[in-house]
Amino acid sequence: MEESKFCSESLVVKTSIVFPTDTNTYGTLFGGKLMAYIDDTAAISAMRHARRGIVTASTDSVDFLYPIHEGNAVCLEAFVTYTGTSSMEVFVKVTAEDLISGERHLCALSFLTMVAIDENGKPTKVPKVIPQTEEEKSLYESAKERAEARKKRKKETEELAKKYRSF
Amino acid sequence: MEESKFCSESLVVKTSIVFPTDTNTYGTLFGGKLMAYIDDTAAISAMRHARRGIVTASTDSVDFLYPIHEGNAVCLEAFVTYTGTSSMEVFVKVTAEDLISGERHLCALSFLTMVAIDENGKPTKVPKVIPQTEEEKSLYESAKERAEARKKRKKETEELAKKYRSF
Ligand SMILES: CC(C)(COP(=O)(O)OP(=O)(O)OC[C@H]1O[C@@H](n2cnc3c(N)ncnc32)[C@H](O)[C@@H]1OP(=O)(O)O)[C@@H](O)C(=O)NCCC(=O)NCCS
Ligand SMILES: CC(C)(COP(=O)(O)OP(=O)(O)OC[C@H]1O[C@@H](n2cnc3c(N)ncnc32)[C@H](O)[C@@H]1OP(=O)(O)O)[C@@H](O)C(=O)NCCC(=O)NCCS
Repeated sequence: MEESKFCSESLVVKTSIVFPTDTNTYGTLFGGKLMAYIDDTAAISAMRHARRGIVTASTDSVDFLYPIHEGNAVCLEAFVTYTGTSSMEVFVKVTAEDLISGERHLCALSFLTMVAIDENGKPTKVPKVIPQTEEEKSLYESAKERAEARKKRKKETEELAKKYRSF
Repeated sequence: MEESKFCSESLVVKTSIVFPTDTNTYGTLFGGKLMAYIDDTAAISAMRHARRGIVTASTDSVDFLYPIHEGNAVCLEAFVTYTGTSSMEVFVKVTAEDLISGERHLCALSFLTMVAIDENGKPTKVPKVIPQTEEEKSLYESAKERAEARKKRKKETEELAKKYRSF
């Protein structure tokens, strides 16, 4: 395994057209379709970084700031911003583009945690990342705090799961 | 429009089999596929409550506690727990079941906010909910706090969006 990799080595760009079958009665993209795109793109990014199979451990909250219209291009950019031992934080930026006017909107930002898995399905070590650009450095530096918040949150989810399992 | 509805009136249950095409190399369901199921189920629930078109405004964080294996049944249960003026909080519980052994796991819990939309694409008023069971009451009572947290979070997302748009 390589010791460390640049963020740019895990960069994934996925541009798609919003088809009528992906939209609701207002002609805008379904949230669930976008969530699936976000996870796909993050998964490819994490596999480029780890060169291993991966699973999604969690997705942080996502606010859908703007609707994405039929016929628009939706562009997802993802890269690994930070790693723990077996976990990788992947940042995904979603931009919509009106292909006729060229107008663009940042529609959503998302942080996912992907975990590298070995042949026996157990979490396994991943390379470190080296941030280079301002954006990469800014995300890298704020990542430790997000990772701590997630640990706390997972405990709360497990408590909630215990509670609502009993209903 | 009816003044108020029971939570049970918006209950949606969606049980599916995990097909090989929905799984990774370990034979477990993709996170993105589950996110899409969660959004679909929440959307139907919100439409049952509002009897209006809806959009997904946001999804709170989701922790994937257990993998869901090929051939398992994945069961999603969703209902509207709380409403604002145009917004509805939908709670989604995801359970996996080994159909041979009958063993079940609560795999994920999720809160989504759906907004009812009128003919002109503008947010529009929805009925109130009346919680009846212990589970419904517990979720109803804790919902206001989650709604407040989301307002704060959306502001942070907008700040972050401003920052990362410039890169
Ligand atoms: C993700 C998973 C492998 C973690 O297993 P685990 O027994 O908790 O393993 P560990 O406690 O050793 O955690 C492994 C790493 O994942 C991280 N992690 C675990 N759960 C997490 C969560 N909910 N959010 C963020 N990170 C998480 C841990 O912090 C740890 O990171 P590190 O190695 O960088 O320190 C396990 O929970 C799982 O298989 N979940 C289901 C995954 C899945 O199927 N996703 C798609 C659902 S459809
Ligand atoms: C959701 C949306 C209609 C809200 O529009 P807006 O201009 O912010 O409207 P308002 O400020 O009047 O908010 C309407 C309601 O939504 C709630 N809301 C808005 N953004 C929210 C968010 N990110 N999370 C939770 N609730 C939110 C508000 O609190 C308000 O609730 P209330 O009426 O119960 O008090 C708008 O942001 C939008 O269209 N987003 C894209 C939706 C979409 O296309 N989703 C799928 C993406 S692929």
